[in-house]
Amino acid sequence: MNGAQALLKTLADAGIEVCFTNPGTSEMHFVAALDSEPRMRAVLALFEGVATGAADGYARMADKPAATLLHLGCGLGNGLANLHNARKGKVPVVNIVGDHATYHTQYDAQLQSDIETVARNVSPGFVRTAQSTAALCQDAADAIAAARGLPGQVATLVLPADVSWGEGGQPCPPPAPPAPTAASDEAVQAIAQAIRSGEKTIVLLGGHALREGALRSAARIAAHSGVQLLAEVFPTRMERGAGLPAVERVAYLAELAGVQLAGARHLVLVDAKSPVSFFAYPGKASDLVPAGCTVHTLCSPAQDAAASLDKLAAALGASATQPPLAPAQRPGRPRGPLTAPKVCKAVGHLLPENAILIDEAITSGLMLGVMTAGCPRHDLITLTGGAIGQGLPNAVGAAIACPDRPVIALIGDGTAMYTLQALWSMARENLHVVSVIFNNASYSVLNVELERVGAEQAGPKAKSQLDLKGPVLNFAQLAQGMGVHAVRASTAEDFCQALEYALAHPGPHLIEALVPESLAGPKRKVLPWLLRALPSLPPQVARALKRKIAP
Amino acid sequence: MNGAQALLKTLADAGIEVCFTNPGTSEMHFVAALDSEPRMRAVLALFEGVATGAADGYARMADKPAATLLHLGCGLGNGLANLHNARKGKVPVVNIVGDHATYHTQYDAQLQSDIETVARNVSPGFVRTAQSTAALCQDAADAIAAARGLPGQVATLVLPADVSWGEGGQPCPPPAPPAPTAASDEAVQAIAQAIRSGEKTIVLLGGHALREGALRSAARIAAHSGVQLLAEVFPTRMERGAGLPAVERVAYLAELAGVQLAGARHLVLVDAKSPVSFFAYPGKASDLVPAGCTVHTLCSPAQDAAASLDKLAAALGASATQPPLAPAQRPGRPRGPLTAPKVCKAVGHLLPENAILIDEAITSGLMLGVMTAGCPRHDLITLTGGAIGQGLPNAVGAAIACPDRPVIALIGDGTAMYTLQALWSMARENLHVVSVIFNNASYSVLNVELERVGAEQAGPKAKSQLDLKGPVLNFAQLAQGMGVHAVRASTAEDFCQALEYALAHPGPHLIEALVPESLAGPKRKVLPWLLRALPSLPPQVARALKRKIAP
Repeated sequence: MNGAQALLKTLADAGIEVCFTNPGTSEMHFVAALDSEPRMRAVLALFEGVATGAADGYARMADKPAATLLHLGCGLGNGLANLHNARKGKVPVVNIVGDHATYHTQYDAQLQSDIETVARNVSPGFVRTAQSTAALCQDAADAIAAARGLPGQVATLVLPADVSWGEGGQPCPPPAPPAPTAASDEAVQAIAQAIRSGEKTIVLLGGHALREGALRSAARIAAHSGVQLLAEVFPTRMERGAGLPAVERVAYLAELAGVQLAGARHLVLVDAKSPVSFFAYPGKASDLVPAGCTVHTLCSPAQDAAASLDKLAAALGASATQPPLAPAQRPGRPRGPLTAPKVCKAVGHLLPENAILIDEAITSGLMLGVMTAGCPRHDLITLTGGAIGQGLPNAVGAAIACPDRPVIALIGDGTAMYTLQALWSMARENLHVVSVIFNNASYSVLNVELERVGAEQAGPKAKSQLDLKGPVLNFAQLAQGMGVHAVRASTAEDFCQALEYALAHPGPHLIEALVPESLAGPKRKVLPWLLRALPSLPPQVARALKRKIAP
Repeated sequence: MNGAQALLKTLADAGIEVCFTNPGTSEMHFVAALDSEPRMRAVLALFEGVATGAADGYARMADKPAATLLHLGCGLGNGLANLHNARKGKVPVVNIVGDHATYHTQYDAQLQSDIETVARNVSPGFVRTAQSTAALCQDAADAIAAARGLPGQVATLVLPADVSWGEGGQPCPPPAPPAPTAASDEAVQAIAQAIRSGEKTIVLLGGHALREGALRSAARIAAHSGVQLLAEVFPTRMERGAGLPAVERVAYLAELAGVQLAGARHLVLVDAKSPVSFFAYPGKASDLVPAGCTVHTLCSPAQDAAASLDKLAAALGASATQPPLAPAQRPGRPRGPLTAPKVCKAVGHLLPENAILIDEAITSGLMLGVMTAGCPRHDLITLTGGAIGQGLPNAVGAAIACPDRPVIALIGDGTAMYTLQALWSMARENLHVVSVIFNNASYSVLNVELERVGAEQAGPKAKSQLDLKGPVLNFAQLAQGMGVHAVRASTAEDFCQALEYALAHPGPHLIEALVPESLAGPKRKVLPWLLRALPSLPPQVARALKRKIAP
């Protein structure tokens, strides 16, 4: 048995059943070994960012890692952005990067680069280059243990070609999965005391605290003790919909997040990071915690969020409280010329049972949360690390993890172009994914950001950097070129019909929503905090928002 | 004047006139400052790999660097593969990577990552994070000096948002361009002596030794002293065509390169690296220098190749020798069902004066060199670092550097998918680029590599990793979706007609050449060394090659 064959057996023995690949010559023995391991499914991507993003999406839904197979340092570079998103989302990935044979690196051949250095950024906790065929599978077992550790992470195993092709591979038994612990008694008591003080308390839920069990416990605490719940701004995976507690997410715009957090005297972190501004802005605070607010940590991402919340609920006497749950409720069917809010409304109107909703729609998706709050239960996946180009690859992985669940991915036009090759993998694997692309021919969010950073004297050259006109992209054609059924819609009626068709016909579909450029205007009554925030915004931002959201 | 405005003035004062951008929020002040510097052209890319590959292609043709503008560590990651190609090609690039404001990094916001670590791989000689607005332009001047140093390199300047937006920017005068020196007298004498010995000597030309002046000097030496000339396997830029000395490139396949280099007692490196195998293979040597051959270095990439060759020619008494030059000669017009060799023949038949030819056709392009050897003078750009996805972005940059020259980019299908977004930039900037995509629905080179590494028991899962069928990509549709005029051709007649049309109509065009999968069979008489090499190959490789190239 050569190294590659033993490696594949070790991966499969540990329950790793899918490998998202974009191989080259140095990975040919791994590729050749695929047929020796019937438990391993290999999914080819045409670009490494698709492979890594698919591994991320897979693990979010399967709750276990997939493997990747990348081609040396340059392949890793191409996969880096979505590994960054996985890292920020604490998602387990066993990231396998082929390398030259150990004796070949001294020759500095064309593709030679320092793979470990590139990997360290996304794999700070585990980067290892296998040194021998005999030891390879122990390295792999260590990588698996690191990846699915507490919390999950990207673990990078560099696989030299001769380690892969060498004979004498020794499969390694799978490492034991780790068992997370609940919050300490001290943390629970301190937080219970803060809550009992009656001072305004916000409980910020992140990571695994956004799964059903933890959400119900948190909602019991909120109903019993009057604390306010918020979800982190970009959840790795959030369970939501009718019958589950509804939790509002912290807003992306720091000015609006400030309104949500205003007045809090205690902020309780549950598998979440203390909120900070996504970017810095001249004269604005980066730390979003209000002055005078004490930050408490109930449990870290390495602990068991649900058990921790249960302990807190018990300490507060809230274990038997019946929390309010989101009522089943859908928006009506939208009509007339298509706009971004109408797309969100249509998704809310038609979202099927048990769907996986992937939101990388940036400004166009502002209405999505509101419009789907009362839909049938679904999972929401978002852009954890801010590296755009995540949504379509995530959809590939999610659909492979959950073949019986429909996946709907809402993607901005600028965003879609980073990893559009994901569409081909959807077609090849015949995945039931509906990709909705908001085509407003603009990096719309950047027009807002240009105003926010105070760079308001934008001239024509600056503005041209933010528009995607000349030529306007035709995503339906792009999708068809990769074998994906696709249509364009410019009315709400056409969009609804296309979405109904796509949901009824398993396999990949793309719907290109032709929408006017705007902040995808939330209405006054659905996001009241947005309008409450207006007076606190810089005047030109407030004017721009008003113009865009409340015409 | 804020930091960004001063930076742009410093760049422009140093002759840097183009910035290839894919900005985000942290780069908004740089974007806003673009209109303050009329000498700076900003070219938007939809993916960072396009921006970095365009900067690479630009510098190869303009002989001076462009700037990039990338968005934090993830944007840099996406741009890494083509920066790797630039690094390996010793191409100057001023790589500007926006970062969070200096005071924001402590908060570990979503897009926080260790940019310097990621950059070090492609910028080993210069990575610096600007620390203050006042010092920014000195940092930029240092980066420019490093980029266009001896030899050229990628210099990465990390630009925190507050350094960019801060007031008090002080433009810096441009650094003096460096003056390379010729080979030392000792090196010249030693090599002249080796050549005079009459032992078989090969002069390997790379880097700037593939420009006209150096080529003529090298050819004089060859004609006078009977040495053999070879060009490095993947030149950064090679001047060739009728009226210039014709120099054969070292073959990509190590087995064939071994035939080219066989019997040499002296190998003279002129701005070139001693030849090594691209990849390692079980049981094969990585070092391609034959046993008993002495390697001499006439001049390093930091020296003046043309002046060095002149010195050597003078030492040998070859300064007045008239070398043989490639005669003007074109292949005939191909007819019948399209194949990869016929595409190369058609390009040779129609290549216009003063074209820029970009070759990333991998196996499909084997005939290209032979078919264009007697064409009108042109420049050839190749895949210096082996990180595929270089050709289309290089074409963007080359066309911007040389707006009056037609650019023809020959690209493999697998290869094209890494940076296909380049087509949009071609359309937006209305560049006269003809992109020819060889669609054989396969990672064809990997089928050969699978055999070469000895992994011959490939099963269906392994083989599926190398084919691009199910679905077959439609590149014409993909191009149209990005606003590029595109057609498909499956006969030589259609292809010739499409190429003639494209060359006659300025602006971007894509021609999708539907060709059968094959090694794009060179004929016996045009690449005789290929067939001479067959007996030295492993039997299954020889059989595969024979089957594919000489049916």
